[in-house]
Amino acid sequence: MTSTTPKNKGLPVNFGLLIFPTFQALDAFGPMDILNMLSRDFPMNLSVIAQTLEPVSTKQRDPSFNPFRSNFGESVMPTHDFNNAPDLDVLIIPGGYGVVADDLDPLFNFVKRTYPSLKYLITVCTGSWIAARAGVLDGKRATSNKNAWADTKTVGPNVKWVSHARWVVDGNIWTASGVTAGMDATLAFVEHVYGGDQAKKLARELEYERHEDPSWDPFAEMYNLPEESN
Amino acid sequence: MTSTTPKNKGLPVNFGLLIFPTFQALDAFGPMDILNMLSRDFPMNLSVIAQTLEPVSTKQRDPSFNPFRSNFGESVMPTHDFNNAPDLDVLIIPGGYGVVADDLDPLFNFVKRTYPSLKYLITVCTGSWIAARAGVLDGKRATSNKNAWADTKTVGPNVKWVSHARWVVDGNIWTASGVTAGMDATLAFVEHVYGGDQAKKLARELEYERHEDPSWDPFAEMYNLPEESN
Repeated sequence: MTSTTPKNKGLPVNFGLLIFPTFQALDAFGPMDILNMLSRDFPMNLSVIAQTLEPVSTKQRDPSFNPFRSNFGESVMPTHDFNNAPDLDVLIIPGGYGVVADDLDPLFNFVKRTYPSLKYLITVCTGSWIAARAGVLDGKRATSNKNAWADTKTVGPNVKWVSHARWVVDGNIWTASGVTAGMDATLAFVEHVYGGDQAKKLARELEYERHEDPSWDPFAEMYNLPEESN
Repeated sequence: MTSTTPKNKGLPVNFGLLIFPTFQALDAFGPMDILNMLSRDFPMNLSVIAQTLEPVSTKQRDPSFNPFRSNFGESVMPTHDFNNAPDLDVLIIPGGYGVVADDLDPLFNFVKRTYPSLKYLITVCTGSWIAARAGVLDGKRATSNKNAWADTKTVGPNVKWVSHARWVVDGNIWTASGVTAGMDATLAFVEHVYGGDQAKKLARELEYERHEDPSWDPFAEMYNLPEESN
């Protein structure tokens, strides 16, 4: 569809959500719910992008993470695969246990070749591991979830990881800390791009008490992370 | 699958998520993400239940709610329809703009006939409208989102609606206020059923600053709702 209303001039129109097996549901759907609501006020398109067009499940791929053999998860339908995804203004990458799978090269390659034409990249939780392994965080300040910080540093040795942060912005890359931090980062992104009133309105509609300070991070303290930005 | 480990004795095993066109993504995926994580520690099954087995989208059905003709939403795959859903211990009902559609009788009937055998019913946001229209909230205390309170009272004239509440528990029915309140209600539910340590652990893993007081509700004040429980 075309989006030519003056209201949208210069604003991002085409959003992409990247999903993969065993993604973390709320990493994706926190930001998505905010953007779903925003799309009532601005012309916006969403592509849900995966390696194939088969449904993608949040279920554990790795049986060692599913000791009680639960059959519990939700499956989301992609709209595009890595080969037919449209040009994007904004790409959102959730994290989840699936980020440690050893067959994600096509996904890293998609991020690597898509990033240069994006207006914004947003990662949530270990979604930053995907961005790091795609090489797009090298030399940049970024954050990730706080439960696996040692691994984060190993995954992205050339990234300037910030240990105490709800989210970090470096250039056009927004990286959020663990899971629900994605909602605060997305609302801050909305404030940056669409204005503070819009972000406030969305938070009120979601009945969400947002954190507006990117340095707020009691979880870094809970996990005893040293204050650092290497 | 069978679930006979002692750890699960007496605990709910079979969970159902009810979805319908234009459900609110976060109403569903806030609670789901918490339960996805919980299912690593307890044997749990999830059925995603809809009227048919076709993908169910969050996209606006009603064009008047989509003035900029955005093409923005996510589609979730049901695992069961209303005729083949298994026996459930817990049913979760999200809300969303779709609750006002005029073709939801099969959904109300499903809730009405499913409720008597449930251990717990959890509704989020206007998911309580569905429960109200299914008749299962009659005479009970319940809450809903705060943005459409006048309509809530009309939809459920025989419900004892509580205007100032993050969530309300009456018997085995847990009703949460708007959208993100579903996360606090679900964590309180986890605390009630699985213990406080489990809820604390999950909130930490989700890096979520939860609200533990069910009477916390600044949104009722923002919308100037009178303090009432009729």
